[in-house]
This record gives sequence, C-alpha cells and structure tokens, in this order.
Amino acid sequence: MAAVDAAGEFETIRTLLAPLAHPEYALGLMDDVAVLPSRPGYDLVMTKDAIVEGVHFLAADPLDAVAQKLLRANLSDLAAKGAEPFGYLLACHWSPRCGWPERETFVEGLASDQKTFGIRLLGGDTVRTPGPASFSATLLGWVAKGRTILRAGARPGHAVYVTGSIGDGWLGLQAAQGRLSLDPARIEALAERYRRPTPRLAFGQAVRGLVGAGVDISDGLIADLGHVAAASDVGIALQLESTPLSAAASAWFENRTDPQAALEDMASGGDDYEVAITVHPLDETAVKREADRLHLRLTRIGEVTAGSGVSVRYLGRPVPIRNAGWTHDQAAVPGD
Amino acid sequence: MAAVDAAGEFETIRTLLAPLAHPEYALGLMDDVAVLPSRPGYDLVMTKDAIVEGVHFLAADPLDAVAQKLLRANLSDLAAKGAEPFGYLLACHWSPRCGWPERETFVEGLASDQKTFGIRLLGGDTVRTPGPASFSATLLGWVAKGRTILRAGARPGHAVYVTGSIGDGWLGLQAAQGRLSLDPARIEALAERYRRPTPRLAFGQAVRGLVGAGVDISDGLIADLGHVAAASDVGIALQLESTPLSAAASAWFENRTDPQAALEDMASGGDDYEVAITVHPLDETAVKREADRLHLRLTRIGEVTAGSGVSVRYLGRPVPIRNAGWTHDQAAVPGD
Repeated sequence: MAAVDAAGEFETIRTLLAPLAHPEYALGLMDDVAVLPSRPGYDLVMTKDAIVEGVHFLAADPLDAVAQKLLRANLSDLAAKGAEPFGYLLACHWSPRCGWPERETFVEGLASDQKTFGIRLLGGDTVRTPGPASFSATLLGWVAKGRTILRAGARPGHAVYVTGSIGDGWLGLQAAQGRLSLDPARIEALAERYRRPTPRLAFGQAVRGLVGAGVDISDGLIADLGHVAAASDVGIALQLESTPLSAAASAWFENRTDPQAALEDMASGGDDYEVAITVHPLDETAVKREADRLHLRLTRIGEVTAGSGVSVRYLGRPVPIRNAGWTHDQAAVPGD
Repeated sequence: MAAVDAAGEFETIRTLLAPLAHPEYALGLMDDVAVLPSRPGYDLVMTKDAIVEGVHFLAADPLDAVAQKLLRANLSDLAAKGAEPFGYLLACHWSPRCGWPERETFVEGLASDQKTFGIRLLGGDTVRTPGPASFSATLLGWVAKGRTILRAGARPGHAVYVTGSIGDGWLGLQAAQGRLSLDPARIEALAERYRRPTPRLAFGQAVRGLVGAGVDISDGLIADLGHVAAASDVGIALQLESTPLSAAASAWFENRTDPQAALEDMASGGDDYEVAITVHPLDETAVKREADRLHLRLTRIGEVTAGSGVSVRYLGRPVPIRNAGWTHDQAAVPGD
C-alpha cells in the first residue's frame, strides 16, 4: 500500500514484529507474503476476526491485553474446530494514540501469547487510521484431513455440553467499565476474564473424534447455539438453569431479584470464549473423561432436537428469546 | 466477537457475502472457519493488506472501487510472487456511512473482481467502527513447491525490469482529488488507474522460473526496489530516465520545468501495482518474450550490483534520495 505511514510501518515491522516471525514460513517478514508448504494428510483451518476500540475493547484497556484478546478470540474459533494453531497474519490499524511505547506494549502481548499457544507471526500489514485503533488477525491451524469439528454436525438426540462458565465475558465488560458492584477480587477476576479469555484448545483437540458439532461461544451462548442449529438444520433445547457460572458470576447472580432474566443476560452476552459441543449419547462418557483429564469443567446444558432454532426453558417453562440476533427469520435492521 | 453489530453482521454475511463464498472451502460462511485441503506439490502463498478511508482511499471513492482496490492491492502481492490466487478472507470495519446500499455496492465490487481474477470468498469478519471505514483481506494462492518468486533472489549482474508504467498511482490520487490540471480524458484515466489498478498476475506466473527476485510496486518504485536490495543483500542501480510513463503521465511530464524532480516524485509515489523483477542476462530474452506474448510493456530500468540500497541516477548524475522510507539506516520517527 501507499506508504503514508512509511517510517512507522517499516520500523514497526523490523524492530517490533520481525522477532515474532515464524522461522520457516514468514520469510523474516522481509517479503510481502508467507509461504506455507503443503502438509499432506492435513487440512488447513483458517479464521479471521477483527476488533475495534470502543466496540470490542475499551480505550482504557492496556494494549498487551488487546493483542492477547485478538489472538485468543481467533484461537477460540480454532479450539472449537479441534485445530492445532501454528501461525497468524496480523493487520494493525494504529490510531493516533498508538505511539512507539504503545506499539511495544501491544507486541509484548503478542510475544507472550505466542509462547503460551505455540504460534508464530506469518505476515500482515500495519497502517495508520485517524479513527479508533482496530486490529484483525488471520489464525491458521492444522487438523488431520477431514476431521475438523464443524457447526453442521449436530443431530437430534445429541446432548449439548459447554466448557467452563458462561456470563463472565458479559459481566467482565461491566466490571472493566466500573459498572458492577461486587467485592474487588471478584471484579478483578471478571475484568481479567473479559480482557484475556482462555481458548479451549486442548479440549477441542482431545474430543475431535468424539463430537458431532462444535462452536465457540463468542456472540453469546444462545446465539452461537443458534448458529449450530442453523448449520445443522436441527433444533436445540437449552435448559437455562443449567448454565454453568463461575464463582464470581455466582456471587453476582445470588443477589439478583429476577434470576431468569439474569441467566438470559449471561446466556446472551457474548465474549465467553468457551466451546459448546453436541455429543452422541454413546460418546458422552468418553467426552467427560477428556474434560476430567484436562481438569476442565464440562456441563450438560441441553439436547439437540428435530426442528429449527434454539428453544430455551427455565425450570421447565418456555422462555421467549429477547435477543433475536441469531434467528433465521429475524427482522434485521441491515446496516444499523 | 461480541455481537454489537449483530443484526447488520449476520444479515450482511447471509444476504450479501454468502453468494460470494468458495463452493468447497468456505463451508457456506456458516462456520467460523474455512477448511483448506492440502495440495501436495504446491506451496500456499498468503498475503494480508489493510486499507483505511482517508489514508488509502478517499471518502468520495465509490465502495465498489474500494473493494476492488483492496483485492487488487493484495492480488498484486501474489502476482509478484508468481502465485495463482484462488481465495480470500475479508474483514470489513464498517463506518457509520456504510449502510445497506453502501454494503451492497461494496459487495458488487467484490463479485465483479471474483469473476475477473478467479477467486472466491473463504471467510472473515464484519464489525462496526465509529471511525473511518477500513478493510483488510488475506489473499491465498498456489505456487508449485519451492517456486515462489522471492524478494531475496536478486544477484549482482541481474537486470532490473518493471511492467507497465510508473507514476500513475501518484498522479491518479491527485487526479481523483481534483488537484491535477490535464485534459479530462487524462484525468479520468489516471483516477481510474488509482482506484482500480491491474495486478500483473499472468505475467508473474509466466516468468516464475525465469527471474531472480520479484516485488510489486505498492510503496513506490524506489522504496520497493529497496526492499529487494535489503532482502537480497545487494545494491540496485536505477536509471531514473528509464522510468516508463503512461500516455497520461507523459502528458503531465512534458509540462514540468524540473523533469528530474517529476521523475523522482513518480518513482516515490506508490500505488502503481506493477511488478519489478531481476533477471539473469541469459534469461532476458525469454522474459521479454513472455511480456510480448501478454502484450505487456516491460522496461529495463537498472541493474543489480554489489553493495546495498538503491542508488539512483538521472542522465548519469547521482540523485540523492529524498524519500528515506525504504533505506536501511533511516532516521525513523517511530509511531509518528
């Protein structure tokens, strides 16, 4: 692209990003491209997500956490597919507030997560924007040929499970914004969960051959189960009271006067980066064993049915869905 | 990601983008990922570029042209590597001005270029930004194993050639902004060249086995030759008077009082999306034959030497380089 940000761009790449480069595929970030040898017997799984300041992260969030959230949100997509991540391409749209120290902080976040998750930088672009900072990453992972966990694999009779806990992303945003009254340790735990979610990579890989469908919970539990229902052409029945809560979320939940509404909010809020799977009854024991082996909480929250869409019940009573973002026949407000 | 833009996002994907999806690898855009089977005997070449309104394109540019520029800027990177493009992932950071009709226009640009260049959408993300619109694309192409043209392949004694004409991107920006006085047909030709460059894909593929190094001219001829010099650890001597000009650029050039400064500007301006290559003397005839076969202008503009960096001469006299963005020991202004 035209080098409006030439000095900053080249210096950023050479000084900050080149040390992060993949040793074989990235050509030292000295070329425009990454070159990836084919790996016979494997499929390449790719995902690309973007985050925008003021929309997906807060202006006050430290940029190392922003970098980590960017990678982890994408890694969560790969986790739900059973993929083993190895690399990523990155586009940084730096805002005026992203001077050199901020860029260094961002790169520290990348470097830390590269070690944590075994990934390396493959290439990308760095440009300047007069607006809020935004970033996108294209994450790449391998899965043995034909073994990718898809959204389309849910079948009536499957049980629906979710890892970890739900609602922490939604509560964590409020915690990070200072809008939640809870004791300080809870606030910090929730905010940290919002800023630095944990993609369930080991779990996705462990259950790859044992599950029907898989999806990561980024748009919200109900919305993401809706994606599975749509892709698989099935219905999903969700028992809202089964929603697994963290200790911090439980502390918040105990003081609600309307527990059903609180659970609906947590199941609609997004940013949890857990994995939901559907499992044939014969495989439930094996799946639970894998979760135990990984010391990962795994909760049965519903069943796959014939039909379409997600039907939610709370203590046996039907719950009308307020957030229609996921439905097939929504009254969308395009562009709004 | 959290579905702040849920309705717009899902409707945009389902109605506008799903028809563009790759029939095999994109899973109908119903999943979070694309799944790409390995292709034994081939390397996968990947590039990712971003463009920002007010930086890389103008607020007045029609969004179909913006979509095409995004794809073509990335395709140009693949062209210089000799790759055959087949697909892309896309991140749209929609600004408030990107309502439904604007999104439709953007997608029309994508659809048109998908046909022109034989590529299909693989996946990506669509989010909203309160700032200016920006977009990034990750383009993918195949090259027979080990045959990718790299920046690092230049050797002393190679001739340096460039396709097409140089300076039209820089003049075209001014033409699009109404800052150029030339006859209207010239203005339109230059503005169109700025908005919709032509990636030299057929040429890159045709000369893949015949060239040393290759680079696309996006940052500016001098800057991009500097990238080749740095990656190959060689010097490049550029004869500025050899810079090939289009008819429109020639018409502008004829009225300059300082032709050397005018050529420097055109060789520094960027956005040309031509391809520069270095060629062993024994292969020059074959490379020229390929250009002739493709009816593509190809001009010898210099030589590869020992040493480092780009040295520019005009009619035999050394020209000090004003635009230092590309040099190895620049006084960078990081983050500025």
